[in-house]
Amino acid sequence: MKKYIPEDTIKRLPVYLRNLLEMKKKGEKIVSSKKITASLNILPEQFRKDLSYFGTFGKRGVGYEVDKLIKILEKIIGIDREIKVILVGVGRLGSALLKYKGFSILNMKIVCAFDSDPKKIGKLIDGIKIEDINKMDKFIKKEKIKVGIITVPASSAQEVAEKMVKSGIKAILNFAPTILNLPVSIHVNYVDMASELGSLIFKLKNL
Amino acid sequence: MKKYIPEDTIKRLPVYLRNLLEMKKKGEKIVSSKKITASLNILPEQFRKDLSYFGTFGKRGVGYEVDKLIKILEKIIGIDREIKVILVGVGRLGSALLKYKGFSILNMKIVCAFDSDPKKIGKLIDGIKIEDINKMDKFIKKEKIKVGIITVPASSAQEVAEKMVKSGIKAILNFAPTILNLPVSIHVNYVDMASELGSLIFKLKNL
Repeated sequence: MKKYIPEDTIKRLPVYLRNLLEMKKKGEKIVSSKKITASLNILPEQFRKDLSYFGTFGKRGVGYEVDKLIKILEKIIGIDREIKVILVGVGRLGSALLKYKGFSILNMKIVCAFDSDPKKIGKLIDGIKIEDINKMDKFIKKEKIKVGIITVPASSAQEVAEKMVKSGIKAILNFAPTILNLPVSIHVNYVDMASELGSLIFKLKNL
Repeated sequence: MKKYIPEDTIKRLPVYLRNLLEMKKKGEKIVSSKKITASLNILPEQFRKDLSYFGTFGKRGVGYEVDKLIKILEKIIGIDREIKVILVGVGRLGSALLKYKGFSILNMKIVCAFDSDPKKIGKLIDGIKIEDINKMDKFIKKEKIKVGIITVPASSAQEVAEKMVKSGIKAILNFAPTILNLPVSIHVNYVDMASELGSLIFKLKNL
């Protein structure tokens, strides 16, 4: 694998995979790069360039075997085996994410949620148990969890993130509207919904 | 204003603003670029560079008046007056967004939600009424709505987006895991949670 892979390429890999899984469901066996990218507003050349970081796949003039390319992409992303994820903060957004089906399509599963509110602890949401935040450390270590989702308020996000990292979490998806200060070895992606909406309004008014 | 403004700069503007609003709440009157960026993992130079696209603000060696900079940023982003937003698709994620407080901090308000499910139509979530999707066109035109949020399943996102655009919507925040094919004049931002989580796992496994 080449050393430097652009962030945009990385983010498109799950998008390609999801699209291929859709095509498989529809019974497609062989697809062209044009067909794969048609519904994605991405050029076929971009798709081939993105794939080229990882090797040579598909046959010129023939296309890609859907089943095979799915397996390859799952392997590249690292979701050829199910990835266990935990979530901290079972408020409105956290609850919605526990019920969200989009993760499992890509072989990622929220296996446990944590909160500090005694009224929530012990409850189940879509089969996922809500545990006491004080039990998180033990759970992460026992289950060797590497990936966590943060949906607590901004004011407690840093504390929760530090606890996660101390227990062994290496990658965090942060929905709290604040920046996390963590060791550079920890991977963090941010989903900042208000900032996305704000930047849209900027473009609407200015561009 | 300079013509080309980087996407990253645009996305940081609401982040700066939210941070300044926090500082105002704490009673701060004058702040340095160092202080503004300290909690954001952003260099003070980056902040000054981002602001420089829009003019010269603050006093060298003194800093920025919090109140004044808030007003300036609100004006730049285009949220100096409240922006009315609609949401389509009151499922799990849609419901969570209707209750989300992060939009109103930045002067953006979801004023109405739409769904096609008769069991949902007529209900209120956090004071926001759920209306029949067939009434959306009239509502958008009457209220001159320019911004919409899509939280329907991927399979109906394109249809909903086209309806929005036909009625006058100019900017869309799309949470449905699919790409929208719309005229280039329409601004679209994507929040793809499964892709964010997937790209994190890629980095965890590969980098």
